[in-house]
Amino acid sequence: MKAAIVGSTGYGGVELVRLLQNHPYLELGTLISSSQSGEPLSQAYPHLSHLPFSFDTLEIEHLCKNAEVIFFATPPGVSSKWVPQLLEQGKAVIDLSGDFRLNSPEVYEEWYQIPSAPAEWLNQAVYGLSEWFREEIQTAQLISNPGCYPTATLLALAPLLQAGIISASSIIIDAKSGVTGAGRSVKQSMLYSEVNENLRPYKVDGHQHIPEIERFASQLAQEKITVSFVPHLVPMNRGILVTIYAQVLNNYTSSDVQEVYRQAYQEAPFIRLKQNEWPQTKFVQGSNYCDIGFHVDERTGRLVVLSAIDNLMKGAAGQAVQNANIRMGWPEDTGLHYVPLYP
Amino acid sequence: MKAAIVGSTGYGGVELVRLLQNHPYLELGTLISSSQSGEPLSQAYPHLSHLPFSFDTLEIEHLCKNAEVIFFATPPGVSSKWVPQLLEQGKAVIDLSGDFRLNSPEVYEEWYQIPSAPAEWLNQAVYGLSEWFREEIQTAQLISNPGCYPTATLLALAPLLQAGIISASSIIIDAKSGVTGAGRSVKQSMLYSEVNENLRPYKVDGHQHIPEIERFASQLAQEKITVSFVPHLVPMNRGILVTIYAQVLNNYTSSDVQEVYRQAYQEAPFIRLKQNEWPQTKFVQGSNYCDIGFHVDERTGRLVVLSAIDNLMKGAAGQAVQNANIRMGWPEDTGLHYVPLYP
Amino acid sequence: MKAAIVGSTGYGGVELVRLLQNHPYLELGTLISSSQSGEPLSQAYPHLSHLPFSFDTLEIEHLCKNAEVIFFATPPGVSSKWVPQLLEQGKAVIDLSGDFRLNSPEVYEEWYQIPSAPAEWLNQAVYGLSEWFREEIQTAQLISNPGCYPTATLLALAPLLQAGIISASSIIIDAKSGVTGAGRSVKQSMLYSEVNENLRPYKVDGHQHIPEIERFASQLAQEKITVSFVPHLVPMNRGILVTIYAQVLNNYTSSDVQEVYRQAYQEAPFIRLKQNEWPQTKFVQGSNYCDIGFHVDERTGRLVVLSAIDNLMKGAAGQAVQNANIRMGWPEDTGLHYVPLYP
Amino acid sequence: MKAAIVGSTGYGGVELVRLLQNHPYLELGTLISSSQSGEPLSQAYPHLSHLPFSFDTLEIEHLCKNAEVIFFATPPGVSSKWVPQLLEQGKAVIDLSGDFRLNSPEVYEEWYQIPSAPAEWLNQAVYGLSEWFREEIQTAQLISNPGCYPTATLLALAPLLQAGIISASSIIIDAKSGVTGAGRSVKQSMLYSEVNENLRPYKVDGHQHIPEIERFASQLAQEKITVSFVPHLVPMNRGILVTIYAQVLNNYTSSDVQEVYRQAYQEAPFIRLKQNEWPQTKFVQGSNYCDIGFHVDERTGRLVVLSAIDNLMKGAAGQAVQNANIRMGWPEDTGLHYVPLYP
Repeated sequence: MKAAIVGSTGYGGVELVRLLQNHPYLELGTLISSSQSGEPLSQAYPHLSHLPFSFDTLEIEHLCKNAEVIFFATPPGVSSKWVPQLLEQGKAVIDLSGDFRLNSPEVYEEWYQIPSAPAEWLNQAVYGLSEWFREEIQTAQLISNPGCYPTATLLALAPLLQAGIISASSIIIDAKSGVTGAGRSVKQSMLYSEVNENLRPYKVDGHQHIPEIERFASQLAQEKITVSFVPHLVPMNRGILVTIYAQVLNNYTSSDVQEVYRQAYQEAPFIRLKQNEWPQTKFVQGSNYCDIGFHVDERTGRLVVLSAIDNLMKGAAGQAVQNANIRMGWPEDTGLHYVPLYP
Repeated sequence: MKAAIVGSTGYGGVELVRLLQNHPYLELGTLISSSQSGEPLSQAYPHLSHLPFSFDTLEIEHLCKNAEVIFFATPPGVSSKWVPQLLEQGKAVIDLSGDFRLNSPEVYEEWYQIPSAPAEWLNQAVYGLSEWFREEIQTAQLISNPGCYPTATLLALAPLLQAGIISASSIIIDAKSGVTGAGRSVKQSMLYSEVNENLRPYKVDGHQHIPEIERFASQLAQEKITVSFVPHLVPMNRGILVTIYAQVLNNYTSSDVQEVYRQAYQEAPFIRLKQNEWPQTKFVQGSNYCDIGFHVDERTGRLVVLSAIDNLMKGAAGQAVQNANIRMGWPEDTGLHYVPLYP
Repeated sequence: MKAAIVGSTGYGGVELVRLLQNHPYLELGTLISSSQSGEPLSQAYPHLSHLPFSFDTLEIEHLCKNAEVIFFATPPGVSSKWVPQLLEQGKAVIDLSGDFRLNSPEVYEEWYQIPSAPAEWLNQAVYGLSEWFREEIQTAQLISNPGCYPTATLLALAPLLQAGIISASSIIIDAKSGVTGAGRSVKQSMLYSEVNENLRPYKVDGHQHIPEIERFASQLAQEKITVSFVPHLVPMNRGILVTIYAQVLNNYTSSDVQEVYRQAYQEAPFIRLKQNEWPQTKFVQGSNYCDIGFHVDERTGRLVVLSAIDNLMKGAAGQAVQNANIRMGWPEDTGLHYVPLYP
Repeated sequence: MKAAIVGSTGYGGVELVRLLQNHPYLELGTLISSSQSGEPLSQAYPHLSHLPFSFDTLEIEHLCKNAEVIFFATPPGVSSKWVPQLLEQGKAVIDLSGDFRLNSPEVYEEWYQIPSAPAEWLNQAVYGLSEWFREEIQTAQLISNPGCYPTATLLALAPLLQAGIISASSIIIDAKSGVTGAGRSVKQSMLYSEVNENLRPYKVDGHQHIPEIERFASQLAQEKITVSFVPHLVPMNRGILVTIYAQVLNNYTSSDVQEVYRQAYQEAPFIRLKQNEWPQTKFVQGSNYCDIGFHVDERTGRLVVLSAIDNLMKGAAGQAVQNANIRMGWPEDTGLHYVPLYP
């Protein structure tokens, strides 16, 4: 089956290229880049000089002829324009951008500061947090792939919220990300010399992943949830670690929490519950795993949950392929048997 | 005035060597290292090959002859044995280890898992958080230099606690440190290959700096404070950033908080309140500054405070020299005019 | 077909574990570690917590029962003791250590400072530089896998030496390696704080890969070759880049050199000749590629060749699997379709 | 004495700001930045938020009123336009750019690809390699501060060339630099994600520091010297290491070389000859030292010399201040007593 990648010059797009090279059923039909149309892929990414692809322009007809599944790995505001036309042509679309993750145009426009996609399409989009929306994904025409921070956060929170064992108003998410999360666009603050040997909080007064986390956390908890969320930039390329703090309800114990996680994820091939050591980003590097560990602190009555992913894999391209697998009825881990690269 | 450094082969000790080279009134009288006694300093630290020092053995008589001020930069359990004898000889001691930071032998032994210093000396020690214990430091014989995490944390919390504008039971400290905090001792987990491209939480179930933070936070707040504290290891050499979350009381606003900080630190030469950007560890690298910034989040009613220091400077050797200055009646910033090394 | 890995707690060994997980014909029969026998693999390497293996003790009978192919990824002096017994049992052995790379016991003992393997076995070993000894490897019982530096160096030099277009006495190799080349053993000089933000030459007066390079360079050139070789430690985990300088003979031009490389490697799946950009270690990270580029400098009459590999892949485990493929008659790139991890 | 810095928004300029803060005789009269005129320094460099400076526009009258010494830390082509007017006003100028380092306009234009400064001013400029042109610097009106690579290279080569103990045609310089050498200008190739975990050769076919090295190497050797020079970008912020290879003449021995270096540098406060370990960039970080070590390889008859500097200090701002000291008749190391920051 042929797949297209729109926005293939970013890090998320090129990670999709990597994954499709080793996928048994999906092959690359066309690579779209508006900015570098006509150029060979190996000019933008010399590490792929053995691959013969060039970038094409985004045109609906060309796309539809060359792909059954279309991945968008584009900046905000791009997929909202193009996706509706592709859906009308019956294509399956997996959108890695944030354009279809919120169901309210007003909330989208408040946090993203650009026009929203039409409300009717927002409602059709299925949220691609694979472990929690498997059934909906199987029949979705438009899958809205989660953000990197929301993936790490919601995979850690969802079992707790569903089981009702933490206080909904007490959730604090201290998030740390490697630098590829910022993409390949060129800014002074992302120069090596500025980031190296530095730890930098950013968007402390509001990150656009907050409404996404709150929307789905609320849905899973079946009550309104508002969270504190502070992201930090860590001097490394890949990896997200979120440290989540929440008040435990009703004296639930460590074994209760353990059991909640075990039940939630016993069938999930990419979730690894950690017991003898804490999650570290290197343990998942280059793989689709999400490692989760926790500690119930009796001194404070708080639960601390740690959740680690590779932001370009489970946090972007890996989960997108996982969703394509679910959508097509293939085993969920098809083409995703990546052992973490260590060290 | 002559100074001695005991434990001069660790990173804290060698940072003191650096500072004493540029101090106008303090000069190095003797360098003590039990493990490398007799060897030249330049063998342990070739970057100091222009300095003619060698390591001496720890002997009270030798120490007393060669130093008026004695810095201990030793592992737990060393200074507790030697310091009492030096105090009896009338020497001024600044201890960078944790041995005299707690006033209860039981609490010390619970968290450090080794025998405590005698209770009478614990009570004599003055806590060397320079900005908050200046007066006591001026006349102290034994100054217990704060830990790196407590320094960054308490400088951020103290004005808030004293002003009573945050809820005492709501404090969560998410702490991140560069690798020099772990010292120069040789462990597999500290190898370059294991730390590089990795973000690692550690001691999630309890770090020995917790009782130190709680002791002085409680003292400043005049009520019992229990905190959540989770440290993380960041792939960089120097720098600590703590991200503190707390519930704001009585609808205090951003300008109230600003005013509280301004008043607390208007005379403090090493505290820089940040308003147009968030603190970053690189902004203080190699210097004695503590940069503090904050955000009042109206959505959650929480205050987020960010505090950044160089763990070897304000978090260890720099603050030790600052305390020596206060103790000796010299201007507080004598020999500490280090402009941050950037980038 | 079952394979064993002896010395599976080092970085080379664990990289072999990674590769065998995705190899269609080879499966892991047993993992040998003398130091951690009985322990689960996931204790030494938590990133592999989804794999059920434990370490076994090295015993000939156990090994022979559980493996047809045996990889040694052991420190110097181990395989020389065990391999002869395994060969006598008819097993195929691929040795990643240096024990069988030299054919003279005296030279081995001079450079490695430990007793050599018996001379008769040194002579039986086939050097596993895949692209240049394919035929011999097909029928070898003992394959001596090349060192990381010799691999990058000889792949760059071999076509030139065979074609006779550089001066044999003029070869200078300035080599740079990531830190995993030093293995996982615990030394102060390999601590993160010591390596990070540092560039360090080492073994300037003699590295044990010199006689290996000279042996095979001489063999390919059919004249005695002595080289200058200086290695440097670069603050990154993976990657080797060698910069080779040599005098060009007889006014050979850039196109001559290009043609020599093209002919030598037109059938080699893992050699990529770079023309529009210089090789960089990141372009091959996590893959089995060797990227080669060159420049003929008319000002000096010298040729500069740049050659980049991932030291754990083409420089160790990847080439070992490539050799196993050749030996077993499978396509050379079986199980090695790794797209470089970027960034 | 008042000093001005023109081009103070680059890393070289801001390092000068750092040094002037601790210089006893020089104080900052004005900071010039054409691109950020009017803005506070702390906006470009928040780590300097305790300093009250703002950027001024470049105007001759303003400059002359506010400075006796004027440092240019500007891109190519700027100082060549402005310096002549300042010299005519009797000001002392220290130019950190390459505009006055070559004495032939044709050679400059060939390597820099922009118009040269007028030939008459090229001839007046004194090359500011402090240890070798001290006398000329004392009376110079225009000091052309050496490039970072030429500084590390020429300090290593000069004693050998003057003593005539290496072959002039055999010199190969393999150079490695941290990333700050590329300045703060914004390019995709300098993004953290692209540089981190990567080793990258660049300008293999010609770097503009080659004619500078050759000019002064030839002058010191009193014969024409042509060198091979290949620079590499290393994933670290500061530091240059050059590894130099040359043929030893007339069987000069290791002790001969040692003696040549000893005599050349016995009075040089910033040159440290290394004997028990090889130079490493971390050993000089943040300081004005140049560490030099060597090895005579009897197998090849070649000498290998290693030379390490901090590219922003001895390779730029540090040497500029050293030259200002020499020019003003102050002790050479005034305001430059920086102990290397370690680790």
